Amino acid sequence: MISLNELGRKLGLTVHGNPDHVVSNLAPIESAGASDLAFVVGRKYLSTLKNSKAGAVIVPEDMLDEASGNLLVSANPYASYAKASWLLQLPRVAPAGIHSTALVHPEAKVAKTASVGPFCVIGPGAILEDSVVVGSHCTVGAFSSIGEGSQLFPGVRVYHNVKMGRQCRVQSGAVLGSEGFGYAWADDSWNQIQQTGGLLISDAVHVGANTTIDCGAIEPTVIEEGVILDNQIQIAHNVHIGRNTAIAGCVGIAGSTRIGSHCQIGGACNIVGHLVICDQVIINAASLVTRSINERGRYGSGMPLQKEKSWRRSYVNLGKLEKLFKRVRQLERQDSADDRNTDQSTNKTSAS
Amino acid sequence: MISLNELGRKLGLTVHGNPDHVVSNLAPIESAGASDLAFVVGRKYLSTLKNSKAGAVIVPEDMLDEASGNLLVSANPYASYAKASWLLQLPRVAPAGIHSTALVHPEAKVAKTASVGPFCVIGPGAILEDSVVVGSHCTVGAFSSIGEGSQLFPGVRVYHNVKMGRQCRVQSGAVLGSEGFGYAWADDSWNQIQQTGGLLISDAVHVGANTTIDCGAIEPTVIEEGVILDNQIQIAHNVHIGRNTAIAGCVGIAGSTRIGSHCQIGGACNIVGHLVICDQVIINAASLVTRSINERGRYGSGMPLQKEKSWRRSYVNLGKLEKLFKRVRQLERQDSADDRNTDQSTNKTSAS
Amino acid sequence: MISLNELGRKLGLTVHGNPDHVVSNLAPIESAGASDLAFVVGRKYLSTLKNSKAGAVIVPEDMLDEASGNLLVSANPYASYAKASWLLQLPRVAPAGIHSTALVHPEAKVAKTASVGPFCVIGPGAILEDSVVVGSHCTVGAFSSIGEGSQLFPGVRVYHNVKMGRQCRVQSGAVLGSEGFGYAWADDSWNQIQQTGGLLISDAVHVGANTTIDCGAIEPTVIEEGVILDNQIQIAHNVHIGRNTAIAGCVGIAGSTRIGSHCQIGGACNIVGHLVICDQVIINAASLVTRSINERGRYGSGMPLQKEKSWRRSYVNLGKLEKLFKRVRQLERQDSADDRNTDQSTNKTSAS
Repeated sequence: MISLNELGRKLGLTVHGNPDHVVSNLAPIESAGASDLAFVVGRKYLSTLKNSKAGAVIVPEDMLDEASGNLLVSANPYASYAKASWLLQLPRVAPAGIHSTALVHPEAKVAKTASVGPFCVIGPGAILEDSVVVGSHCTVGAFSSIGEGSQLFPGVRVYHNVKMGRQCRVQSGAVLGSEGFGYAWADDSWNQIQQTGGLLISDAVHVGANTTIDCGAIEPTVIEEGVILDNQIQIAHNVHIGRNTAIAGCVGIAGSTRIGSHCQIGGACNIVGHLVICDQVIINAASLVTRSINERGRYGSGMPLQKEKSWRRSYVNLGKLEKLFKRVRQLERQDSADDRNTDQSTNKTSAS
Repeated sequence: MISLNELGRKLGLTVHGNPDHVVSNLAPIESAGASDLAFVVGRKYLSTLKNSKAGAVIVPEDMLDEASGNLLVSANPYASYAKASWLLQLPRVAPAGIHSTALVHPEAKVAKTASVGPFCVIGPGAILEDSVVVGSHCTVGAFSSIGEGSQLFPGVRVYHNVKMGRQCRVQSGAVLGSEGFGYAWADDSWNQIQQTGGLLISDAVHVGANTTIDCGAIEPTVIEEGVILDNQIQIAHNVHIGRNTAIAGCVGIAGSTRIGSHCQIGGACNIVGHLVICDQVIINAASLVTRSINERGRYGSGMPLQKEKSWRRSYVNLGKLEKLFKRVRQLERQDSADDRNTDQSTNKTSAS
Repeated sequence: MISLNELGRKLGLTVHGNPDHVVSNLAPIESAGASDLAFVVGRKYLSTLKNSKAGAVIVPEDMLDEASGNLLVSANPYASYAKASWLLQLPRVAPAGIHSTALVHPEAKVAKTASVGPFCVIGPGAILEDSVVVGSHCTVGAFSSIGEGSQLFPGVRVYHNVKMGRQCRVQSGAVLGSEGFGYAWADDSWNQIQQTGGLLISDAVHVGANTTIDCGAIEPTVIEEGVILDNQIQIAHNVHIGRNTAIAGCVGIAGSTRIGSHCQIGGACNIVGHLVICDQVIINAASLVTRSINERGRYGSGMPLQKEKSWRRSYVNLGKLEKLFKRVRQLERQDSADDRNTDQSTNKTSAS
């Protein structure tokens, strides 16, 4: 429950209408009621806004004149709504302290304001800084550290030698610092290379559920500040992901690839190893990246769905292209031969 | 161990042969012995059936005349076999009661017939109904509920505010209700939107190992009755999956997409966000869905494997198509020009 | 810390330079210092080698003449480096014994030299052989066995009836023996087939983080000796993977498919069910396998990335191929008709 006055002050937004009106929930603009806060991002939602029963709406400046009721004016309504979501509803956080069932190694350092949930195992030399929240059933391996205010949801596996910055957020089932897939073939078997490079995760990195990030072989895998990773992503050893890059679910990134900052990688993309991708690259869903990218922009290679019969013809036709090229080349040759003939015949005719 | 008589009665099948014969295991028709129950789905297995040493075989009606031995006649032998699999071998289920190491919040409600395994953590306001089985190391978050007879295998993570119906079955490592991937870009950083919409899972939903289903942003993510989800699937926030839809492994479904009932989504498909897919759509493996589908039927866009050299030519040729279209257009122009020339020359010639 | 003399002896390599020089870490050839061991695989790294400050370098024989400093000569420097990685840095291993918080069923057999971590649950009839290491929070189900020297990292789920060989290595979050995705459609619902076939994993198999391997329906799923599996792989019921096959991350293999030995499957490949793939097949990343392969070699079907506009033209052009083929056919017909006309006219002209 928060008054529009207080909300506006905390979000830095001007309030129009009744500043004492109180909202207690977020809701979509279409279904919001008197106690709900909603938002619209632009003028195409104007009629929706006019019909809304929301207790208050965050609107962009250019919609102010035509809207009525309780309004908060924002240069970026979606971002204001994101910030409001944390003010209206306080997230559930465990109390500080180490649960009686948690096993914290005597050589680990746990800040007094940190919370360690039931059945956690915190290894020797591990460090949990102030206000860290570790959910139930987590492991934090030897000499790993979790920076101030970071939160691990239940069942996160942090291997040894993982350094995590501040204000990170890791969903359940994520595995951080698992052994990279490094093998040398010899003596009719795969000889594993011990992976000792560790993992560096900077501040404000979010990691989705069941996402895996391998430690590096000799040098560390690196995730820079502000990177957001969705669920079920696989990041191999010695990958380096630049600042504020966003990666959607089910993406796989193979070893030693370096991704720039402010990139956006669509869901289910696969990026092969040892590539360099520059800053501000946007890759559409389900693309395969086999070469380095040195120019910002939007890329893709995902094939859009078709009816099965039509798609089957398409890929069969693709296989016939080699011959089609030859046929067209043949036609072109013929054509220029015909031209000569025709010209000749025309000439002759003219001459006749 | 069950007699054919009892088996027939329980499955509603007519028994031919010796009703007192006892079978104790399922086996493939080829290798089944005297104490095994096998099945065949159609006449193409007729010779296999005739050579089988199975103690009993579930057969379709149209094979009855040509088969001998102990037979159970079914309109759907595969389904009868599915049902028989639970009669012949009783699945291993933990005894009712809360294990002494499990932590059940005083404000949680656990039915007396429910089983809570070792090292579980059940949150405040959580409800476990009758005959629920929660394997070891599971978490059930605050105000989540698990309906009658549902089973969580070891290490399942149920976040808060997840409502699960009856007779559901969730394999190990699944994460239900994790935070949706919702962020607004502002102030040179990703601003997370708190995800408070929860997750609704109806009755008889099966969830595979390491599958993840995010909670909704404001309104819930919804999985309707009878949906079956294989392993390693990612379902984003506010996705809605209709009744009895089956989804194979490694599929990713992006946010707010609505999938109809009785659909079948092949393995490794990727479905982008905010789409609507109607009922009874079948999508082949490894397809990318970028548009809504409003007509039932079979769809695909997965490119079948080729020898590397041949495939390389194919995709290089694909890149040359733009020029090929121009070349063909040029030939067509030339051709009609030639026609005119030829006609002219012919005319002239004729006239000459 | 190890002297080059000892290192050479243990790896079977000849030492050139100072055999008493001691190295303590692995490092890349470019950044290695006096206490580091590096390696080079071939002559293209010759100038890098000459400029290196590494304490010692593993080199192939054909680089020996041109290199100086401390050298270990190897027929396969990368493999020697792999082996050295385990000599220079001892991996962290838990002490033998059962942790006081672990729950071992009275009917389980745990070797005295095995290590069972905190909060583990070991079921009835389970067997942990000598030198097995089970990390914290693992479950080993009823009648499953883990062979000598195998290691499970924290949070691995082993269902019942899983037989694992010796010297296996399983990363966190892996799920072994989960229920296969087997259902029969009947009575307007999916009828699950109980999966009782179990899972057989041979010796020296490595399983990556959050990889899932389902148990078989009636007969077991089989992973042969020396198979290495990266993270986030999904292996369905009754799949059979042959000896020493290597599979990269995010691959999905559908039910009953049989993969040969010494294959290499690139990341994010999807292989549909009931196929047979012969030995020594190499499949490039992000390919879709829809047919059996009976010839060794290299295959692919992943579409490489393009700029979005260019890619859009490509797939639109692909859809227009059907018509293009007709247009070219038409041109060819026209052309041969023109030929006749031209010939005619030419003849006539000639005759005129």
